[in-house]
Order: sequence, then C-alpha cells, then structure tokens
Amino acid sequence: MKVVVWNENRHEKTNAAVSTIYPKGIHGAIAEFLQEQGIDASTATLDEPEHGLSEEVLNETDVLVWWGHKAHEDVNDEIVERVYERVLEGMGLIVLHSGHFSKLFKKLMGTTCDLKWREDGEKERIWVVDPSHPIAEGIGEYFELEQEEMYGEHFDIPSPDQLVFLSWFEGGEVFRSGCTYTRGNGRIFYFRPGHETYPTYYNQNVQRVIRNAVEWVKPVTRNRPEYGHSQAIEDLSSKNKQ
Amino acid sequence: MKVVVWNENRHEKTNAAVSTIYPKGIHGAIAEFLQEQGIDASTATLDEPEHGLSEEVLNETDVLVWWGHKAHEDVNDEIVERVYERVLEGMGLIVLHSGHFSKLFKKLMGTTCDLKWREDGEKERIWVVDPSHPIAEGIGEYFELEQEEMYGEHFDIPSPDQLVFLSWFEGGEVFRSGCTYTRGNGRIFYFRPGHETYPTYYNQNVQRVIRNAVEWVKPVTRNRPEYGHSQAIEDLSSKNKQ
Amino acid sequence: MKVVVWNENRHEKTNAAVSTIYPKGIHGAIAEFLQEQGIDASTATLDEPEHGLSEEVLNETDVLVWWGHKAHEDVNDEIVERVYERVLEGMGLIVLHSGHFSKLFKKLMGTTCDLKWREDGEKERIWVVDPSHPIAEGIGEYFELEQEEMYGEHFDIPSPDQLVFLSWFEGGEVFRSGCTYTRGNGRIFYFRPGHETYPTYYNQNVQRVIRNAVEWVKPVTRNRPEYGHSQAIEDLSSKNKQ
Amino acid sequence: MKVVVWNENRHEKTNAAVSTIYPKGIHGAIAEFLQEQGIDASTATLDEPEHGLSEEVLNETDVLVWWGHKAHEDVNDEIVERVYERVLEGMGLIVLHSGHFSKLFKKLMGTTCDLKWREDGEKERIWVVDPSHPIAEGIGEYFELEQEEMYGEHFDIPSPDQLVFLSWFEGGEVFRSGCTYTRGNGRIFYFRPGHETYPTYYNQNVQRVIRNAVEWVKPVTRNRPEYGHSQAIEDLSSKNKQ
Repeated sequence: MKVVVWNENRHEKTNAAVSTIYPKGIHGAIAEFLQEQGIDASTATLDEPEHGLSEEVLNETDVLVWWGHKAHEDVNDEIVERVYERVLEGMGLIVLHSGHFSKLFKKLMGTTCDLKWREDGEKERIWVVDPSHPIAEGIGEYFELEQEEMYGEHFDIPSPDQLVFLSWFEGGEVFRSGCTYTRGNGRIFYFRPGHETYPTYYNQNVQRVIRNAVEWVKPVTRNRPEYGHSQAIEDLSSKNKQ
Repeated sequence: MKVVVWNENRHEKTNAAVSTIYPKGIHGAIAEFLQEQGIDASTATLDEPEHGLSEEVLNETDVLVWWGHKAHEDVNDEIVERVYERVLEGMGLIVLHSGHFSKLFKKLMGTTCDLKWREDGEKERIWVVDPSHPIAEGIGEYFELEQEEMYGEHFDIPSPDQLVFLSWFEGGEVFRSGCTYTRGNGRIFYFRPGHETYPTYYNQNVQRVIRNAVEWVKPVTRNRPEYGHSQAIEDLSSKNKQ
Repeated sequence: MKVVVWNENRHEKTNAAVSTIYPKGIHGAIAEFLQEQGIDASTATLDEPEHGLSEEVLNETDVLVWWGHKAHEDVNDEIVERVYERVLEGMGLIVLHSGHFSKLFKKLMGTTCDLKWREDGEKERIWVVDPSHPIAEGIGEYFELEQEEMYGEHFDIPSPDQLVFLSWFEGGEVFRSGCTYTRGNGRIFYFRPGHETYPTYYNQNVQRVIRNAVEWVKPVTRNRPEYGHSQAIEDLSSKNKQ
Repeated sequence: MKVVVWNENRHEKTNAAVSTIYPKGIHGAIAEFLQEQGIDASTATLDEPEHGLSEEVLNETDVLVWWGHKAHEDVNDEIVERVYERVLEGMGLIVLHSGHFSKLFKKLMGTTCDLKWREDGEKERIWVVDPSHPIAEGIGEYFELEQEEMYGEHFDIPSPDQLVFLSWFEGGEVFRSGCTYTRGNGRIFYFRPGHETYPTYYNQNVQRVIRNAVEWVKPVTRNRPEYGHSQAIEDLSSKNKQ
C-alpha cells in the first residue's frame, strides 16, 4: 500500500510560527508518523511540477491525504480532475481540516463545504459517536486538543454515510468532525483537526485516527463497473416476437 | 407553491415518434397533470432565452422538475450554476430519467452518474422499498411500465439518503429508481422512468410519484446558514487571561 | 389528524417542583400547545386503564407522542407490543427525552438506547445540522435552553436515517438530539429536550420542533405490504419445462 | 480471529435432500471453506448444550455466522439475549438467508424482518451496487445462482447503513440482499442466499462474500462506552455560583 501525503506547503514557507512547529512541513510530519508505523508514505506539494501528482504517481497511489488552505485556487483544474478520477477508480482519500474548501472535496461532495470558523486557540473535544467504526479504534470515548481553530455547524456537506466523530468547542459550537463517504469505487474520510499554527498532527490520537483511516479508505481490488449500452442478459426474443 | 417543469425539448422537435406521444412536449405533459391537481406549474425549455431560467423565474420557483437527454452540453454553465445555487438555497429539485446525466445533477452528486442502458422496449417493474415514505403514497407494492428503456446498475451515484423505489427489468437488471438527497437547504428526488418514446408520463403511478415528490421536495422557509468567521457564543475571556 | 400525547404522569403526582411547572402534567402542556395550533390532540397516561392506549384509541391515532422516565417498567408488555405494531402499521411516533429508555423505543431501535446523563441545570445549545429538514423549519441556526439535564454521547442508538439536531452542553458533552428513523410503514422522531424539572415544553423553539415533527411523522395512507408466500409475477413455466 | 458458524441443523437431520447436499451440515460446509482460507472457524448447533453458545464460547468468538429456519422458536431466549449482548459488545455477526426471521436478528433490527418468498427453483442474479465496499471485493458486476428460493420486497428491515447487493429474480421480484448495520460496538451483515435444498454455500462467489464479510464485521478493540451518571468535564462551578 502506497500513501501520498499532499500539502500546499505555503504557510510553512511564509509563516515562521508554522515552520517552527512543522520544520518538515505538515506533509512531512504526517508522512513521518505513517512511516514509523511501517507504511510506505511519501509526500507531494503544490509547487512541484504537476503539484507532485503526475499520472505515474497517482496510478501507484492507494491512499491520498490532502491538506490545503490558502492556495486552493492555485491547484490546477486539470490536476483536480485527475485526482477526482482516481478517487472514482478506487483510490482512498483523506481530506484534512481546511481541505474542506479544496476544489477536489467540493467537487466530490456537490456542496459548498462551507462552515463557521474562528481562530481563538480554544479547546476542542472530539467525541466518538460510532464505537463500532474501525477509524475510531484505539481512541477513548473522547480526546481533547487544548488549542485548535474552531469549525462550527452548519457544515454544508451531504449527510455523511457514516458519522464517526463529533466535536465540542469551548466557544459554544459543535461540528461533524469525522465523516465517511463513498464515490464510485473510492472511499473518502474527512477529518476536521489540523490548523497550521498548532501541533495537532503530533497528537497521538490524531495520528491514530489518520492511521486507521488510511487502512479504512484503502482501495478494494476491482475494475470500475462497465457503463453505457448493455446487452440483455435474459432472452428478450419471446417478447419481441409477440 | 410554484413549480417549473424544465425540458430540453429537442426530441419533440426532431422525432415524430416523440412529438406524437407528447404533442405539447414532455414538459407540457408533466405541467398539465400537475395543473389538473391544482398546482401552479409552468414550463421552461432549453431554447428560450436563458433557457427559461432567468433569475426572476428561479427566485420565484419552489420546485424545479428537470428532463434532459441529448442536449446536456448545450445547457449554459452559468445557468447551471444559477440553478445549483438555488437548490442550495432550498429550491426543491426533481430530476427525471436521462436527467441523471445533466450537468446540474452531476454537479450536485459529485459522481459521474453513469449507468447501464438499453433501448429494447422491455418491461420495468418498480417496487416500493420504503412504504413509510410520502413519495410512495398511493402506490401499490409495485407498478409496471410495459415498455421502457432499461437503466441498470451500477448507477454511479452517492449512496442515497433514502431509497424509495427499486426497478426490476425483463432483461435481467435492477436499478435504484427513486432516490432522495439533501444538498444545502434543498431536497432532491431522482426518479428513473420516462424515456421519450414511451407514454410514461401519462401513467397514473408515475404521475402520482411526481406529484408526491413535488410536495416532498418543496422548500422549508429558512435562510441559508451563516458561514465564515464567527464570534464565540460562550465567554472565552477567562481562557485568554490564563 | 389525531395526536395522542402519552405521559407516565408520575413525577407530577409526587414532586411538587414538577407539578408547579406542569400543573396539567407534561402531557397536558404538550397537548395544549398543539391544540392552540389547531391540532386535534388528546392525552393518555400510565395509570389509566390500558394506559389510555386501548385498541380503539390507537386505531384512531395518527401520531403518538411519548414521555416516560421512572416508570418504564410499569408499562405493560402487551400494550408495548400493541403500540409497536401500530408504529409498523404507519402511526407516527415522537419519543421525547427520557423516553429513550422506554420499552417501546428500545424495541424499535434494537439497542440499549443508553447514554451519559447529569442533572446539573446547565445550558444546552441545540444546533440545526440539516437545514433542509421540515422538522427544523422556523428554528434559527441554534437555540438555547438555559437549564437542562445533560445527555451525552455515546448514545447507543442505530445510526439515524436523518440527523437534524446536535446539542452542545456547558459541561463538555455533545449529543445527537434530533434523529429520524423509519420502521415498517411508520416514521419516528426522537427529540432530546424535556427534563421534568425545567419548563422546557413551554419554550417556543421546542414547541415548534414538536409541532413540525407531528407533521413529519404523520402516516401515509397505505396498507402494510403483503408478506409470506407469493406467486411468481412472471411466467416461470418455460423454465420448469426444461 | 475466531469464527463460530451456528446452524440449527434440523433440515440436515430430517430431509435427505439437504443432508445429501450438505453431509456435514450447512455449518460444516461454511466452516470448511473458511478453514481452507486459513480462518480459525468452528461450529455450534441448536441441539448442543446451550446451543453450543456458552458464555465461554461467545467470549472468545470474534465473528458469529447464523443460519436458522424452521426452529427459530426453539432457540432459548436467554441464549438470544446472551448473543445479543455480545454483538453490542463488538462481536461481528453475519446473518444468512432464513436467519432473517431469527429472534436474534429481529431483536437487533427492531422490525418484523418479514418478506415475500417462493420456493420454485428460479434464477437469482445478485448485483453489486456499492463497488467501493470491501464485502464485494473479488465479485464481478453480478453473479448468478441458477436455482434459489426467491425472497422479495418489501423486506421489513430498517434502512441499511450500507446497501451492497441487490437481487433480481426470474419471477419478477427484487431484494436488498446485502445489508450492513451497526449496533452498539458491533457490526452486522445480512446476506440473502442459502436455501437448504440448493448447493449455494459451495458457490465461489457466495463463499467470497462470506469470507469478505467475516473480515468486515470483525470487532474493533475497544470497551463498551461508559453510560449513566457522568461528572462534568468542564468546570460548572462559576455557573453554580451565579
């Protein structure tokens, strides 16, 4: 299984607060903890040729992790289309935090994916609402992030196929923080935490969720279904003779 | 409540088989049976200015019924965007038959909406799988259409919020024929039947389903939620003082 | 449409704090605001013969509202079965607050319906997470109850068909507070608020939600499907001759 | 991972047609193909003490496969309760064919689980409607069973969390044949095929589905959530002082 962690990697270049927390970039931090658990994880970033997402790379990618924020518009439409097609073909996709507003996620959801937000360093408490779900394995009844950006409802997404986590915020909001979807042959997991100015991706629970999600979204081995004109399987000739 | 029945209205102009069945167009036939039940239903078609879907028209439309087939690409992207926004604002949408491949439906679903098809005049039997659903009210356990185009699985849609009807086809296929979704403030119903060369929209059961669906997708009275930066509701000052 | 509001009506008899708030009982308060909106609402209570839920009464009931708490075990199993059957036949059911632990709700859900709770008079903020849903019509983005009992996740229910409301609690918990289900021909809505020592059922938003829910769960007109042995619809004789 | 295949094992004792097809019983056939794929699978049957489902056995069981038909009523209520509790604790459950009418499945679903049926040796074609689902891995777009009992809609179940397979029957019916649910910490898969007088459980596709489902329903490692009275996580004292 090959995982590619994609990051726009722009905050890291311009904001010392971010590069201090994530000296190898958010992508580097995520790839690193996946590698430490024996996963073949590499990285790709916006400013590489083809954003690091050439057809060759994508064809060999089983799971793509996506982090973007201020440069969504700089992602080339052609690359978005390419990644989108790969998801429908079965590539697993994990969209993190501000990736909710990426072209890719909005295209897959069919909605604006808008939400309320506030950057005030408040506490987030993430509750497990589906204890049967493999993505929540190893997580207690809840876990806390002492400081995070707030994302609040209404979150303008389609009703999730499965709702795994709900967040409570100190300022009074709630949020559907762990949501699964299927699109074509592919499975998708959206996970809320991960503002760039907090060390969220070093949190053990956050790492465990992402690790679990990699396993959960990984592709099944199958071709895309055949679409288009299709011969009858049953004999329709008697009907036609009538 | 104002309903607008939209139709590309191209088959009717070029195929005598179609115009014989639907002398007032598919849109005319649908609007007529809705009007006979006391609904304020009008029509709009592709070749009208702005496809008959000006901002004025859409702002006053509670429910839009959509039929398209061979001219999906002729629908202007700007109009698609306009209708899409109205759905998110709450306008109900009923997508019929080959409308599955419209730009609008694909954008709302986030998938290709592809399927298997065959035009062989075979029998379709439509089963109610959710007898609690208002869209199925007045429909027996199943109803039949003696001749219809076949649509077969896999239907490349997101998992429906509610699955109301399943079709059985003589040639051996099945299909999820009645599917509901929500997107933003709007509700959507996809209904499979209605190939242009068969008198499907005169069928009493088909009419009843569309009539029920109009009622089911009609908007609730509410504004779009507020999105974007949001002040804390609870007092965060004690936290900040620490 | 006939609505019956059922209440165990025991706190009202033994706890002055409750009878002061609800001099006509919780059932009386709920029936009253429904009546004021033109709905034919009556009441039934545990200590009436057959708990006020005779076959005659139930056969004429379109929507049953259920409030129970400390006397769940006193509800006769035969009556539970009778109500259960009526729900499957199509009678709408609204289960309020501590009714989560009623025999009826547990039987319909297939789970323990257990949860965390705390009676500490804290604030609850109820957020709309499905703005397209008719049950949320007329409700702003959220509403608050200054003092309520806390119910917290994990709430041991099946994944709701539709999730309409989420609660935020001052003490740090979240809860899926508005959940819809279908069972047989019937529709069910669970709504969290309503501890007996707070004037929750006088709250305008709570009343609006219950009013909307009555409309949403009301039965469709249809018989139960036919089950059991069934003749083939298609001719299987050619097969049998082979 | 330990799998227990449970069978009432009554047809096998009284009907030569069944014992000829399944000389080791349906349970034996299923356990055998699982063992051949390296799974630790054993069997348990109705006429064993405690139906072969002692607390010791169940506590070590990760996945239970259930086949029953004519002796549902002979299953002891206490054992049903014991198995039910284990499912809520996380034990995976696969219910096969006529197990739809078992006390266990009905209790978990909250509905009658009734359906239409016909024993006429007709063809069943099982379509994959969720190509992203691991339970469908290795299965083509559809597979056929030349002779099976028909099960037809309406199938009186709650709306499945995930719908994986749909069946087409020669006689004109359709059926939701592969359905997933979660209950408490446990995951459940219902799979339709497997009438006792046909060699269905030797079919490679059927075996693959069951094999996949064993993997899919297997428990996550976690305790049941804590329910009941719960201290506030946040400090409510400032509120109480007011």
